[in-house]
Amino acid sequence: MLRTHNCGELRLENQGERVILCGWLHRSRILGGMTFIDIRDRYGVTQLAFDEQKNADLCMKVRSLGREFVLQAEGIVRERSSKNIKLVTGDIEIEVTDIKILNHSKTPPFTIEDNTDGGDELRMRYRYLDLRRNVLKTNLELRHRLSFLIRNYMNENGFMEIETPFLVKSTPEGARDFVVPSRMNANQFYALPQSPQTFKQLLMVAGYDRYFQLVRCFRDEDLRADRQPEFTQLDCEMSFVEQEDVLQMFEGLMKYLFEKEKGLSFGDFQRITWENAMKYYGSDKPDIRFDMKFVELDCEVKGFGFKIFDDAELIVGICAANCADYSRKQIDELTEFVKRPQVGGNGLIYIRYGEDGIKSSIDKFFNAEQLKAIAQKFNAKTGDLMLIMAGNKAKTRTALSCLRLELGSRLGLRCGNAFAPLWVTDFPLLEWDEETARYYAMHHPFTAPKPEDYSKLFTHPAEVRANAYDLVVNGVELGGGSIRIHNREMQNDMFKALGFSEEEAKTQFGFLLDAFEYGAPPHGGIAFGFDRICSVFSGAESIRDFIAFPKNNNGRDIMLDAPANISSVQLEELNIKLK
Amino acid sequence: MLRTHNCGELRLENQGERVILCGWLHRSRILGGMTFIDIRDRYGVTQLAFDEQKNADLCMKVRSLGREFVLQAEGIVRERSSKNIKLVTGDIEIEVTDIKILNHSKTPPFTIEDNTDGGDELRMRYRYLDLRRNVLKTNLELRHRLSFLIRNYMNENGFMEIETPFLVKSTPEGARDFVVPSRMNANQFYALPQSPQTFKQLLMVAGYDRYFQLVRCFRDEDLRADRQPEFTQLDCEMSFVEQEDVLQMFEGLMKYLFEKEKGLSFGDFQRITWENAMKYYGSDKPDIRFDMKFVELDCEVKGFGFKIFDDAELIVGICAANCADYSRKQIDELTEFVKRPQVGGNGLIYIRYGEDGIKSSIDKFFNAEQLKAIAQKFNAKTGDLMLIMAGNKAKTRTALSCLRLELGSRLGLRCGNAFAPLWVTDFPLLEWDEETARYYAMHHPFTAPKPEDYSKLFTHPAEVRANAYDLVVNGVELGGGSIRIHNREMQNDMFKALGFSEEEAKTQFGFLLDAFEYGAPPHGGIAFGFDRICSVFSGAESIRDFIAFPKNNNGRDIMLDAPANISSVQLEELNIKLK
Repeated sequence: MLRTHNCGELRLENQGERVILCGWLHRSRILGGMTFIDIRDRYGVTQLAFDEQKNADLCMKVRSLGREFVLQAEGIVRERSSKNIKLVTGDIEIEVTDIKILNHSKTPPFTIEDNTDGGDELRMRYRYLDLRRNVLKTNLELRHRLSFLIRNYMNENGFMEIETPFLVKSTPEGARDFVVPSRMNANQFYALPQSPQTFKQLLMVAGYDRYFQLVRCFRDEDLRADRQPEFTQLDCEMSFVEQEDVLQMFEGLMKYLFEKEKGLSFGDFQRITWENAMKYYGSDKPDIRFDMKFVELDCEVKGFGFKIFDDAELIVGICAANCADYSRKQIDELTEFVKRPQVGGNGLIYIRYGEDGIKSSIDKFFNAEQLKAIAQKFNAKTGDLMLIMAGNKAKTRTALSCLRLELGSRLGLRCGNAFAPLWVTDFPLLEWDEETARYYAMHHPFTAPKPEDYSKLFTHPAEVRANAYDLVVNGVELGGGSIRIHNREMQNDMFKALGFSEEEAKTQFGFLLDAFEYGAPPHGGIAFGFDRICSVFSGAESIRDFIAFPKNNNGRDIMLDAPANISSVQLEELNIKLK
Repeated sequence: MLRTHNCGELRLENQGERVILCGWLHRSRILGGMTFIDIRDRYGVTQLAFDEQKNADLCMKVRSLGREFVLQAEGIVRERSSKNIKLVTGDIEIEVTDIKILNHSKTPPFTIEDNTDGGDELRMRYRYLDLRRNVLKTNLELRHRLSFLIRNYMNENGFMEIETPFLVKSTPEGARDFVVPSRMNANQFYALPQSPQTFKQLLMVAGYDRYFQLVRCFRDEDLRADRQPEFTQLDCEMSFVEQEDVLQMFEGLMKYLFEKEKGLSFGDFQRITWENAMKYYGSDKPDIRFDMKFVELDCEVKGFGFKIFDDAELIVGICAANCADYSRKQIDELTEFVKRPQVGGNGLIYIRYGEDGIKSSIDKFFNAEQLKAIAQKFNAKTGDLMLIMAGNKAKTRTALSCLRLELGSRLGLRCGNAFAPLWVTDFPLLEWDEETARYYAMHHPFTAPKPEDYSKLFTHPAEVRANAYDLVVNGVELGGGSIRIHNREMQNDMFKALGFSEEEAKTQFGFLLDAFEYGAPPHGGIAFGFDRICSVFSGAESIRDFIAFPKNNNGRDIMLDAPANISSVQLEELNIKLK
């Protein structure tokens, strides 16, 4: 090794030792005849001291060194005269006797500090410099620890990690595939997996009983801020289980991670059905760090001549505690907020429960008595503000859900250090798509209907529920899963309900249908977004900074400059032409 | 859970307990009024017993069940009257009171036994059934354990597992890339990584100090039996190290794996330079489970009028102990062996050191005295057989190396339970390719020349050695690595020596060259073939059965029927046409 110690480990008890450190010149400063350098590596920062009086040549040499030079410094550990309590190595410094420049550095295009001066694009181009910053290093260290803890838990619970292929077959169902032209099989293509779903089911048919994998998955979708074309999934499957077994096992995993990583312990996670999640939070991934549940109004407010209520499919509101003193301006802001296209509300009605009585934006239609009755429905108390929306059921719920989150943020109820896990269960099996005028599997086509709802698959498809579940933490969906179909007839029915012809089902999933005829066990599982787990544990919004080398929103790696053109020889060999 | 216990855990101490087991009908047999079923799951096999006299209906039902049916059986654990000592559950059986068929099974196309009757192609098509066989299950369990142990060791030694991207940039250097057309960036392609080499070097530049990853890699090469288009690599890199540090760290890893998995402990691994490996074994990956080193003859045998020797660039042989009694037929077989095109020898000369004196195939040219001198050179003793080849140096070494391995196998010296690890060091930096008339990097273009040889890079390129090393176990290269270049000028020189124009170097590796200008630390690393580690630990030849879903030699997944055609819509979106 070129060093005896790293830059984070020397303490007062090492005083007097001769050591060699290697690292990057983080900062340097000159104080009279003394020159100090902070030398940095992954493990920390240590102060190097150079005394002009003792060694003028060395001091001169050191003063010419620039930021981010790579150094090897030899010297004696000594107690610092002015200690730095913010630094774990702050009690000591190295009285350097010799220094070697292991590599030079141009001046970095942005500062290697927590609050860097570099813009997004520049930091993406020099990702290897951005990764030197403490923020990103901390994120990747968290990611390493979480992956290690996950594997420990899974191993202790008898799960085998089994790797599944990346060069698979394209299936039109679901998101768009990335494809890979085959050279050896002209005009044919592999696809990169969107998830190992069918493989893990085949592993259950093969008797592997408990499978998991931390695995890269690929989706060629138009990207949003928190989506990446490649992302990592914790993929799990178990045999001979019912829904409760899966929930217990993975609630256990989350508790284990929270305890080991955060020192937090939890009782049983809360649960809510999908139907109630929509009813009380307008969302299938409610943030339950704060309450503020939806209150549906109907008989209370219809028939008073207020057209917006009278015509509405749904009238629903929330009660913001102690917000009765919101100014006109604040309420206008909220109204503007709900009218944004991405929120989609058509207006906002308020009822203030002030010290001086109840006032509202619908005083024209409701008298004090009637408003009081509404307030009672909300369980409102003096000082509260009720906010009500009305209109189409689905749209109104979505818009009010956005408002609820916005209010939660404004009121400081969505704190990054609090964690509120929630199971959402009993998802519908199918959802109708207006555009293509057909049902799609809400989870995926391998999810089993609840046995008691199976008979309605062709008569009332929208009413069929599934043993499907999501784990939501702080309003973020961390994972989802289901009990799967394990029998060929039911899988045939499912494909039929999704509008597949027998031929299509066979071409795309023949191998799985075949497998169901050779003794498939009852099974179910779950998959978590690992990038998301990392960001939620860190209290961050975006997953991008938990990925060492992410793509930008156009799917480009700016540092590599990829994707890029390939040679005509390559195209030739692959039997493809550009358009 | 649909079961109280698995099929491998019940023992005599569970006697009298009411249990529920789930699993596959492995075998059934009728003995008079008793019917027995072996029920199997991942954990083992348990005997279910049905007594016609006690429950005739149940017994009837059970007799209609076929192989591989999925069953749920409830009953009481009881001591077996005739115990099966081959089975860990062999002391007990379940007196079944109720049985449920969880799923039917068609008769499998081959038997689920260690010695199955299924051919390769059939077993690939029904891989999920083949994976039920004990052999494959044992392999995948070994793979799971090894990956878990590797991560433990790496974590304990301060390595961070950092995931690198799969959608990267195509580089013509090295093997052929698989490419992925980009929809969002028309006419451009990603490539799948052949290894994360450049990323791990960038992580060192970013200061991550110790990185590892168990990661899938891709090479679009024509396949041999032990190659797969996608394979898994244990990829590692360290900063501020010299060669010795890397060797120690990963010798430590291998010792840890051997000890934990095999209970074997090793002293220091043997080391040999590449030059000596070629001289003494004719191979850069010698199997040193047995000795039989090459002995070079020259002055001893030249100038005696034997043209084959006189004209040869190299005369070299091996001494097979106690083989002097090989028959004419046996020696003819060996001669045929070396003449095979894939071995490439042009003939074989033998000298028998028998009880009755020395006899050889070159008695015409050498008298007894001269033959005795040769035998002395071989350190041969009575009873030994010397086998000699002559000709072009490289070809003769390769052919004799094949013969040495063949003899080792015939003599039972290459036993699967013995492990002989070996470091091969000091590889040449470059190798000349006749076809393209240029030098190629023997390891890869990022390997540093030995400092003392650097000056010869342009004057005597073939003589430049690298701090590059391979770990070889039992004649199989498990991994290889090197100390890398960390400075831009040297990397420029290296690209120049490889015939890259400045422009080419910049287009392909500009980001890495840039990175070297911002404080790259000295670094080095190694990468292991994880599939190979698994097969060598298991004493197997091929890696295919250590991969859950492998491709065949045409790169096809027979089960999925992939690669396959994709839709015209997909081609349209990707801006490509088929030729």
